[in-house]
Amino acid sequence: MPELRQNIATGEWVILATERAKRPEDFKKKEEKKEVPPYKENCPFCPNNEHLTPKEIFQIEKDGKWQVRVVPNKFAALIPDVPYQRIYHNTFRKATGFGFHNVIIETPSHNTYLPLLPVKDIKNIIEAYHKIFVDIASHPDIEFVIPFKNHGEGAGTSLEHPHSQIIGLPVFPEQVRGRMEEAIRFYDREGQCVFCHMIEMEKKENLRIVYENESFIGFIPFAAFSPFHFWLFPKRHQATFGELKDKEKDDLTDAIRIVLGKIYKGLKDPDYNLVIRSGPVDAQRIKYFHWYISIVPRLGKAAGFELGSGMYINTGLPEESAKFLREVEFS
Amino acid sequence: MPELRQNIATGEWVILATERAKRPEDFKKKEEKKEVPPYKENCPFCPNNEHLTPKEIFQIEKDGKWQVRVVPNKFAALIPDVPYQRIYHNTFRKATGFGFHNVIIETPSHNTYLPLLPVKDIKNIIEAYHKIFVDIASHPDIEFVIPFKNHGEGAGTSLEHPHSQIIGLPVFPEQVRGRMEEAIRFYDREGQCVFCHMIEMEKKENLRIVYENESFIGFIPFAAFSPFHFWLFPKRHQATFGELKDKEKDDLTDAIRIVLGKIYKGLKDPDYNLVIRSGPVDAQRIKYFHWYISIVPRLGKAAGFELGSGMYINTGLPEESAKFLREVEFS
Repeated sequence: MPELRQNIATGEWVILATERAKRPEDFKKKEEKKEVPPYKENCPFCPNNEHLTPKEIFQIEKDGKWQVRVVPNKFAALIPDVPYQRIYHNTFRKATGFGFHNVIIETPSHNTYLPLLPVKDIKNIIEAYHKIFVDIASHPDIEFVIPFKNHGEGAGTSLEHPHSQIIGLPVFPEQVRGRMEEAIRFYDREGQCVFCHMIEMEKKENLRIVYENESFIGFIPFAAFSPFHFWLFPKRHQATFGELKDKEKDDLTDAIRIVLGKIYKGLKDPDYNLVIRSGPVDAQRIKYFHWYISIVPRLGKAAGFELGSGMYINTGLPEESAKFLREVEFS
Repeated sequence: MPELRQNIATGEWVILATERAKRPEDFKKKEEKKEVPPYKENCPFCPNNEHLTPKEIFQIEKDGKWQVRVVPNKFAALIPDVPYQRIYHNTFRKATGFGFHNVIIETPSHNTYLPLLPVKDIKNIIEAYHKIFVDIASHPDIEFVIPFKNHGEGAGTSLEHPHSQIIGLPVFPEQVRGRMEEAIRFYDREGQCVFCHMIEMEKKENLRIVYENESFIGFIPFAAFSPFHFWLFPKRHQATFGELKDKEKDDLTDAIRIVLGKIYKGLKDPDYNLVIRSGPVDAQRIKYFHWYISIVPRLGKAAGFELGSGMYINTGLPEESAKFLREVEFS
């Protein structure tokens, strides 16, 4: 029988469509993996092609060679070198396209995968995410910063070379505003961060947890909106990604490596999006919001119902997906 | 220079990415259309295959043959024959999968397109949408009804035979709740429905209107979230689709035919989603919400940024897209 589930943090309902549900192994990617070379001479992210991108704004080097390189996006959605200005005409509201849109080139190698990199290389990527996040967040006209990674064509990228992106916005996304309001209402009622509460409840129920270390815990949420939709939380309450401490960076490195590794191995390298859902830039001390990482393997397709309601139909059962991932050996 | 625009009704911002913008004609579908036969013997929606679907709950006949046929979805996301019940366990909230999920088979012909059908056949489809909407909305446990159409694989359907769907929900979608709240705040401040206001402003500015008749007006919204994202409004204020009057059904038939026809012809049959965004079932008399139809040609791809913010990056300029569609001749 189908079932509706509500996410206690977002208030969003999801339909678990048992009539068309699939077993976890049915979500494995079907296509054969195509051969990709370690270097491509026309790839703007490969070493020796640095002239094909704008000049780097940050890089981590070893033996005189970059390991991680951050550049402005050549086809930036928003640009930093215009003044931020609202322009109203009748009741039409617009603003200049001020903002940041940077690319994090994760590794010099064209054909590797994030979870297969050595631990120290993954740590470098986390350091770059954090450094660029903090830099962008410190700009007085920036309200919100979103680091994300699109992996594979189905996840919206046509570039093979492993990379992530960070966008800094001068406006507040309405969807995030709604979630903040949901969270503050929970805090007002219960005196606790709703995400801290969710972590407690997931540990108590212990049906959907896939990974845990000293600082991080990862699970398929009770009301996951798509198959293998995954949430990874810092256990210490913190509202923004900028607050991450050094020891936590090490633990995040391991968490990301193992979780993405299990997804890579168990589902045969599915396309996925990874997003850091941080609180807004000025939220360091707030007690009602908690940053986390959301990973969405692209195993279904949003259609008219999703567009028309913001609700999702999930054909994967969270408890089964979690069990499947727990049993994938990756270390 | 890129630009940010805010939708006055939803409060949502969109990025118009001028650096990577395309000309309207660049959005034309590239693939060759594949040949599809007028009848397929294994298609559950073709005539003589009625035994392959659950029994119809409504149909419009002519000369003893059905023209439009409505059946329960064989792989329903929600089902009507369970009692609606909330089940709470600790703070995990779920509900039985009560609801409606019906399919509207739009025509006996396997290989036609909605805008190419004779006017009276399109009118029959509108009648079926309306009848089923009103029926589902009258159930005491239903809170929200969403009629929608997925056209093409990129829009989430694998069935070729022209069809639409209607889902009736026993819960309220959080995203819709947010929009209702936005709309009521505008009404409180301005004493006018924000959508009526938007129609007025679009008429005054007259840059994005594509179609208008006595009862309906259609335009690319100022803050369209994707290329050729289209909104079609009844001009008379009405909060729910159920309130549509007979004369308005005729005008809606023509509006749908011409708008989908222009999209079909101008963009070479792109995949698209069409959704009727109605107010909730009990909203007949409310003055602050206005139902409309949203059409989203699937010309871009939502990726990590969209998932992480609910905001969109649009590579089509609304004024140019509207001009392009206005100039497509279809009658």
